[in-house]
Amino acid sequence: MDKIPILRMGQFLLVTIQVDLYDRLALDLEADLVKMVSKTGARGILIDISAVSIVDSFMGRIIGNIGVMSKLLDAETVVVGMQPAVAITLVELGLPLKGVYTALNVEKGMDLLKNKIQLDEEEEIGPDDDNSNDLTE
Amino acid sequence: MDKIPILRMGQFLLVTIQVDLYDRLALDLEADLVKMVSKTGARGILIDISAVSIVDSFMGRIIGNIGVMSKLLDAETVVVGMQPAVAITLVELGLPLKGVYTALNVEKGMDLLKNKIQLDEEEEIGPDDDNSNDLTE
Repeated sequence: MDKIPILRMGQFLLVTIQVDLYDRLALDLEADLVKMVSKTGARGILIDISAVSIVDSFMGRIIGNIGVMSKLLDAETVVVGMQPAVAITLVELGLPLKGVYTALNVEKGMDLLKNKIQLDEEEEIGPDDDNSNDLTE
Repeated sequence: MDKIPILRMGQFLLVTIQVDLYDRLALDLEADLVKMVSKTGARGILIDISAVSIVDSFMGRIIGNIGVMSKLLDAETVVVGMQPAVAITLVELGLPLKGVYTALNVEKGMDLLKNKIQLDEEEEIGPDDDNSNDLTE
């Protein structure tokens, strides 16, 4: 079990971090995620860190990197389930996770991603499109 | 990190197993899942075991138990992402995971659950209902 599984769910990729992200594991996750975005054409990444209670600057930087890298591949990153102590530590470390969105839980994160993607598509199609109110999928 | 996070996604609960399920962790997961089904009224449980390469009879039994327990609470269990070696081991151990559905990946597992739930609802409403062909959600 030396790899964090990446689950594909429609246009999104879902990762739950349950183990300590030591160096190689974190770098592997970063590389795997970017490869997977490129391979599947995913439009969003959800990273659930609800099981993470301790964070260090390395992990903060890796999450930030994933956000920036996936943005270059036209995918948004949402970090969900952050524990309050982790938020405090990240700010104290001077790592406010720029380029990464956050949401309280997976459901809210998924709604956020769906809205982001829809906004992008509306901009491409134009504001007068018939589907602009279709929020059902 | 001594708890496996359970993610709620609409009517379903999603669990990814990434660490060795030693005794207490497995029993905690079993209890947490059943509590969560009862609390949220979830209709399905998705257990992703794509990161699991070694399985023993205890883990096989726990997964079977989760299936039976959640069935009692009117929720179906789908195990997804099983590695071929795990399937071989489970059969050789005489644990064919009765009462648990399986699917190749999370997307297919979710489709399976949606179909199951829809069939249940159709049976409750009756076969002449207008929504019987509505597969869009």
